[in-house]
Amino acid sequence: MNLKQLGELGLLHRILRKAPLPPRSVVPIGIGDDAAVLRMAAGRDLIVTTDMLVQGIDFKPEFESYRDIGYKALAVNLSDVASMGGRPMAYLVGLAVPGRMPVTSVDEIYRGMNFLAGRHKLSLIGGDVSASPHGMMITVMVIGDTGRNRAVLRSGARAGDRIYVTGTLGDSRAGLEVLKRRYTKKYRPVPTEERYLIRRHLVPVPRTEFGRLLGRRGWATAMIDLSDGLATDLRHLCEASGVGARLIPEDLPVSRALRMYAHRRGRTAVEYALRGGEDFELLFTVAGRNGDSVQGAARREGLILTRIGEIVPKGRGITLLRKGDREIPLAVRGYEHFRSS
Amino acid sequence: MNLKQLGELGLLHRILRKAPLPPRSVVPIGIGDDAAVLRMAAGRDLIVTTDMLVQGIDFKPEFESYRDIGYKALAVNLSDVASMGGRPMAYLVGLAVPGRMPVTSVDEIYRGMNFLAGRHKLSLIGGDVSASPHGMMITVMVIGDTGRNRAVLRSGARAGDRIYVTGTLGDSRAGLEVLKRRYTKKYRPVPTEERYLIRRHLVPVPRTEFGRLLGRRGWATAMIDLSDGLATDLRHLCEASGVGARLIPEDLPVSRALRMYAHRRGRTAVEYALRGGEDFELLFTVAGRNGDSVQGAARREGLILTRIGEIVPKGRGITLLRKGDREIPLAVRGYEHFRSS
Repeated sequence: MNLKQLGELGLLHRILRKAPLPPRSVVPIGIGDDAAVLRMAAGRDLIVTTDMLVQGIDFKPEFESYRDIGYKALAVNLSDVASMGGRPMAYLVGLAVPGRMPVTSVDEIYRGMNFLAGRHKLSLIGGDVSASPHGMMITVMVIGDTGRNRAVLRSGARAGDRIYVTGTLGDSRAGLEVLKRRYTKKYRPVPTEERYLIRRHLVPVPRTEFGRLLGRRGWATAMIDLSDGLATDLRHLCEASGVGARLIPEDLPVSRALRMYAHRRGRTAVEYALRGGEDFELLFTVAGRNGDSVQGAARREGLILTRIGEIVPKGRGITLLRKGDREIPLAVRGYEHFRSS
Repeated sequence: MNLKQLGELGLLHRILRKAPLPPRSVVPIGIGDDAAVLRMAAGRDLIVTTDMLVQGIDFKPEFESYRDIGYKALAVNLSDVASMGGRPMAYLVGLAVPGRMPVTSVDEIYRGMNFLAGRHKLSLIGGDVSASPHGMMITVMVIGDTGRNRAVLRSGARAGDRIYVTGTLGDSRAGLEVLKRRYTKKYRPVPTEERYLIRRHLVPVPRTEFGRLLGRRGWATAMIDLSDGLATDLRHLCEASGVGARLIPEDLPVSRALRMYAHRRGRTAVEYALRGGEDFELLFTVAGRNGDSVQGAARREGLILTRIGEIVPKGRGITLLRKGDREIPLAVRGYEHFRSS
């Protein structure tokens, strides 16, 4: 059955049957009326974000399953909420799909989202489904909250703060490279480490709990999630905060898989870590006195956390300090859709 | 200049320079960080809705200006908030546009939205801009609020309640017909009344203030906005409320322009009023004792308000009662995208 046969309302009902149900105390009215009603506890600030995935630009159905596409559409939004130190509560989905697409593919998209929503106790509270004359497009909006004035902005970093990142960097960009080659060149067996890199690109893990902890405890002075690549996103954070930064490239956390892959391609893992996009890890700054607390919390959650440098006064710019070498300025060359397309 | 030259970030900055600025007390953090922060007054419920417009399905650039497209993308969401009895506060926009599209066309889209946002004191608090390999797609999300437990649902209508609609019905569908003929047949001069119908289709006026008033005063027992056509939307309301309805077709409010147009096409205005979609007027029910208050409020706002029937017990179904005639069941034949495409 495809969408043309099922109709929009039929499709919406099909989606809702399988979505996680919100508790009435938080979402008195979910999907089914003209809008959803969300109940906020007094004294809390609301966090709202939206991200869009476009077929042919942000994803290609020949590269990945519909389930992975749905998962990622929600994951990138959760990453934004995490980077504000917020707790995600509910989401809305705008989905435009070609009329000839089988309904089971749409089911798969929502299955991917439901999986992630279930894990984080998120409720689907609204949405819109429409036919699309060409490709697919998914817009997800996530609503969350923080304690009053507890949102972690990009603008709070101060000279002397330590710079941290969660997880490992550069895997996602390398995984995208593998996918592209795999589908444009002749078939060849894919080594284990390349399969790992592909998964890191397709199924990023939003750092929801840790981001929220950083916000609740007030440890992070500034935070951003890594979507455009460390070099570009660190610049965003520094510009918003009016500071500079010094990175130790040897300290950047890279996976063993990336190291092997980069070596075979005649490049270094650090290049991927600096320039790769879509890591969806958290980049944040912490005052020195809270460094140990943050490291301890990460250890308790089993999360890789790495100190990669420190914030310096604005006039010193953003630089790389190689061991036993002098500082060199960090040039920005990130990933922007229109320019790279 | 087109999007490929300007880049996504450049485009986002261009958009923001022209958008209405939110008061810091309501939106402590707007666009520019990873997510927006919205401050809610204690004891209020949040209203959230999203709607999507897809090129070739919901709009055609050859039919209308980019400014009208932007206006309508926001207007349809405001209509949903109005139908909940809510006050709109802020909006987010996901925009996917072909890279070759001139930036001035994007400016026009936001000009249309800004116009409406300014009129209702709405703030743009978030968004995402992406390239699209094919047509354009706009997803708008609106956030608003109501007093606690004051949201007007579809499910509160009771037998004996009066049924009202704002404005006139059917104009929009007739306007769409005119547009389609105008661009598929040979050119001919467009009579004044047809120009009126076209504007009613392209520039619907969301009933923001009146919807909010109905919610605040607790007058409306149930409410929905007319997007699929009176016959279909009344059925939605009746199903949600577990009631039936009796309409007086002669009482349906139709414009003089529609009457002239329908006559020339050999049809009746009532057909358009019952079956036409995208009116974006409010359909609501009121207990008899509040009828006069509601009529008086509409008169003070200069808003056309018409009593078109009454709610009956469920077993009697949804019927039309022509004057001096017996009741006939109202068949549903609305407008659904996938089926009509």
